[in-house]
Amino acid sequence: MKIGFIGLGIMGRPMAGHLQAAGHELFVIKHLSPIPAEIIDGGAVECTTNRAVAENTDVTILMVPDTPDVETVLFGADGVADGISGGKIVIDMSSISPTDTQDFATKINDRGGAYLDAPVSGGEGGAKSATLTIMAGGPAETFEEVRPLFELMGENITLVGTNNGDGQTCKVANQIIVALTIEAVSEALVFASKAGADPARVREALMGGFASSKILEVHGERMIKRNFDPGFRIKLHQKDLNLALQSARQLGMSLPNTATCQELFNACTAKGGAELDHSALVQAIEDMAGHVIDGDA
Amino acid sequence: MKIGFIGLGIMGRPMAGHLQAAGHELFVIKHLSPIPAEIIDGGAVECTTNRAVAENTDVTILMVPDTPDVETVLFGADGVADGISGGKIVIDMSSISPTDTQDFATKINDRGGAYLDAPVSGGEGGAKSATLTIMAGGPAETFEEVRPLFELMGENITLVGTNNGDGQTCKVANQIIVALTIEAVSEALVFASKAGADPARVREALMGGFASSKILEVHGERMIKRNFDPGFRIKLHQKDLNLALQSARQLGMSLPNTATCQELFNACTAKGGAELDHSALVQAIEDMAGHVIDGDA
Repeated sequence: MKIGFIGLGIMGRPMAGHLQAAGHELFVIKHLSPIPAEIIDGGAVECTTNRAVAENTDVTILMVPDTPDVETVLFGADGVADGISGGKIVIDMSSISPTDTQDFATKINDRGGAYLDAPVSGGEGGAKSATLTIMAGGPAETFEEVRPLFELMGENITLVGTNNGDGQTCKVANQIIVALTIEAVSEALVFASKAGADPARVREALMGGFASSKILEVHGERMIKRNFDPGFRIKLHQKDLNLALQSARQLGMSLPNTATCQELFNACTAKGGAELDHSALVQAIEDMAGHVIDGDA
Repeated sequence: MKIGFIGLGIMGRPMAGHLQAAGHELFVIKHLSPIPAEIIDGGAVECTTNRAVAENTDVTILMVPDTPDVETVLFGADGVADGISGGKIVIDMSSISPTDTQDFATKINDRGGAYLDAPVSGGEGGAKSATLTIMAGGPAETFEEVRPLFELMGENITLVGTNNGDGQTCKVANQIIVALTIEAVSEALVFASKAGADPARVREALMGGFASSKILEVHGERMIKRNFDPGFRIKLHQKDLNLALQSARQLGMSLPNTATCQELFNACTAKGGAELDHSALVQAIEDMAGHVIDGDA
């Protein structure tokens, strides 16, 4: 299949690589990241406009940082939308606003194109090993048509709903749970350590019961071992919580602990932690305890 | 072995039953709950004072509701402490204050007895199926001596630390994580539902990734299916969060989201929800969203 791929950064580069390795013909363009040499060497065609990417392909995939990037790529001068005609498909795999996604999809539909939002989780590791979780929203027939492409990039692939935006909504829900669970583990381990217990043994004791989670397993260990190399950066999680809080305000609902988590991330950023892994949220709790978890305890 | 068992309520009754079924000789006393008929039929000796329970046995196990109950049983008139002499062991399996536990242990040690704090998680189901998680604090040799008893009641058995109170500290950490993860799942599912996605499908999509947890699996399903029969009651979780917040104040540290969770449980209680399962915390988030998750969506 002829596939356009826009956004060849940390995530997009390995994702596009998997599609190319499976024999798909890629059409690419320099967006923020340069086009990786191996993608060109693999036979990808370099385009000079986003419009040309869409004109030359059946499916255009976006993997860019934020809502304004998607808007520019789709609807800027010589944008993807200008290259859309009946039967073409746009798949936005970026993590962006659920409500703006509905607008973008409507505009693409108006030009005869189908639209799927299909954000991912699993990070750089999941992108490289083709084990991403993919959460899609949009028409079921479009989802089934491109499912073979998703299967080249991910493992846990769900059509969350047939309305555009449902995939993005699911991704926001994911980021809420991940942030709040990191915060929960932080409060628990700092409490235990300050009370004199060994946080490593507390973590082990809790792993079998109702407190067990992927976050306690992975991020709890990072906190104890003081390994805050990303992983997933605080500044990116702040972008996602901003989406959550902004959407919640639009919807008219309260997310009290999401708001607190965002403030705690702000406190980390104030101390220069924006580029650290999100498990470094524990440092904000440690600051408010006057106590640092001692991995050597 | 001759074992005293004080506190034969929802949890203690099946726990004592497992010990008796394995051939141990029980000495019991009416505390808050009556002595179950099957325990008497099984050959248990009924005592009239807590002192007599300790005098007649090698190990006295407590499974009572709260810190003041433990204090009364141990140090009230004709209490367990009065029946303690060298070589006897007190095991407090109740969930109580970590700092008060240290005082209680010292007083028992002063009379020649050994002390273990060994609170559990896993609820009534875990007690019945002998699959409780047991988190112990105290001397390693005492722990090893009574480990065979723990193995009759639980599965995931950890000596968290060799200081008394370490087990209770671990239990508090457990209750912090459980409450805050329930709150996280509540914010995420109410957000997703209000944004128009199906919370059941969102939950399924998230189960494979970093947002996965025992709470998303069990309590997330309860929220969607509107099954708030306990399980673990809000009023008991409030007792545990009170322990967390009280201990944090004593230690001099801040638990911001634990405090918010306690307030949300208060909001549930205000509407008559004290006896509901703790997953009903979602109703406080729903109230602040003007939206109820619709399991039939």
